[in-house]
Amino acid sequence: MHRIKVRVVEDALDANNTIARANREDFDRAGVTVINLMSAPGAGKTALLERALDDLGDVRVAVLEGDVEGSLDAERLASLHVPVVQLNTSAGFGGECHLDANMVRSALSALPLADIDLLIIENVGNLVCPAEFRVGEDVRAMVCSVAEGEDKPLKYPLMFRACELAVVNKIDLIEHTDVDLDRLLANLQTVHPGIEHLICSARTGEGVDALRDWLIDKVAAARAGDGTFTPAGSAPA
Amino acid sequence: MHRIKVRVVEDALDANNTIARANREDFDRAGVTVINLMSAPGAGKTALLERALDDLGDVRVAVLEGDVEGSLDAERLASLHVPVVQLNTSAGFGGECHLDANMVRSALSALPLADIDLLIIENVGNLVCPAEFRVGEDVRAMVCSVAEGEDKPLKYPLMFRACELAVVNKIDLIEHTDVDLDRLLANLQTVHPGIEHLICSARTGEGVDALRDWLIDKVAAARAGDGTFTPAGSAPA
Repeated sequence: MHRIKVRVVEDALDANNTIARANREDFDRAGVTVINLMSAPGAGKTALLERALDDLGDVRVAVLEGDVEGSLDAERLASLHVPVVQLNTSAGFGGECHLDANMVRSALSALPLADIDLLIIENVGNLVCPAEFRVGEDVRAMVCSVAEGEDKPLKYPLMFRACELAVVNKIDLIEHTDVDLDRLLANLQTVHPGIEHLICSARTGEGVDALRDWLIDKVAAARAGDGTFTPAGSAPA
Repeated sequence: MHRIKVRVVEDALDANNTIARANREDFDRAGVTVINLMSAPGAGKTALLERALDDLGDVRVAVLEGDVEGSLDAERLASLHVPVVQLNTSAGFGGECHLDANMVRSALSALPLADIDLLIIENVGNLVCPAEFRVGEDVRAMVCSVAEGEDKPLKYPLMFRACELAVVNKIDLIEHTDVDLDRLLANLQTVHPGIEHLICSARTGEGVDALRDWLIDKVAAARAGDGTFTPAGSAPA
């Protein structure tokens, strides 16, 4: 008799959510608030973090830096004397276009969870897939650059719906473009009614204080026990 | 006896290349040159096409517009009286982040292949996965906006390596940023030595003539029999 190999094709998202919950439990045990920060390539996530993380008061922060290849952003952030762990996704064919819960889990042992209050996971630059994978975060936030145009919420709705905060970055460039900020914000509200937003420029520093306050508030809320982690597609635990 | 279901997990890329070859044969039979145009979200693919496609001489063009959701770009291009077919990828969970050969194949019957010389496939805005999937094109080209920063070739090398042409767009914005064009171009050459590039602004029209000439040259080269389609990972057919 021939041996028959049966492959069980798991639901990738269910497996991801299982691991995301395990990450979440580890973060909770360590008392770490986790932000999953997403954007298109070049929207300015790292530049905003360079500005915002330099003075978080008594909040101790670390960054998990996701990139297809290289460690350029991690090196930029390490210069702030913040613990940074680089996660490269290029092991997949051509490079995975997002972080998933298992990738984040593989980095947990390299993170000083016991010594931090806030972990920022800077996801791979991509407006599609990162929004589909919970990684155990408390909150999802995204950055969109005004240079990307006012139609992005309509074209990449899942990302804008998945996040609690949209940071509209590079506002200093808007006067040099044909982009209408009111229309951009209206598109944002169409896709995700009630979503919070901040207007920033990592270059000029405009709005960075508000972003810093938002981060500090999230840590304070988590300390007060307002954690509301809900894996995509599941009821709150 | 229980019936045993055996699932054969195909190599997704091999299947993709098989279908890409079938697309290629259909394009060859119709004498259509095909450009796969890629970029990050908001780099300006559609705006460049609006400018460049308005006067291609005797070259008859159509556009296959790939988006996760909506038909905003297709509507913009249809106003040029160019045949446009919209392909939405939102059927996948959350939306597929790229076009593959099978998606393009599903649109072939809607395209007037017999009446055109040039088909431009405007891919989903994403600097990672679209580069991994051949769709039967002759040439791959990409657009990067200077607003995305000078480090993008180093961070998303596969995309820059996969393309024969890099269009550096939004050059009108560069004086309002800290981006160094020489460094951007040096990074491009580091990742893909010898890659052709154009400096453009869809807003001011700078460089659009050169892009138009490049498109016309590609059609002329294909007519002269210089087709060089090579599915990723395979020897030339």
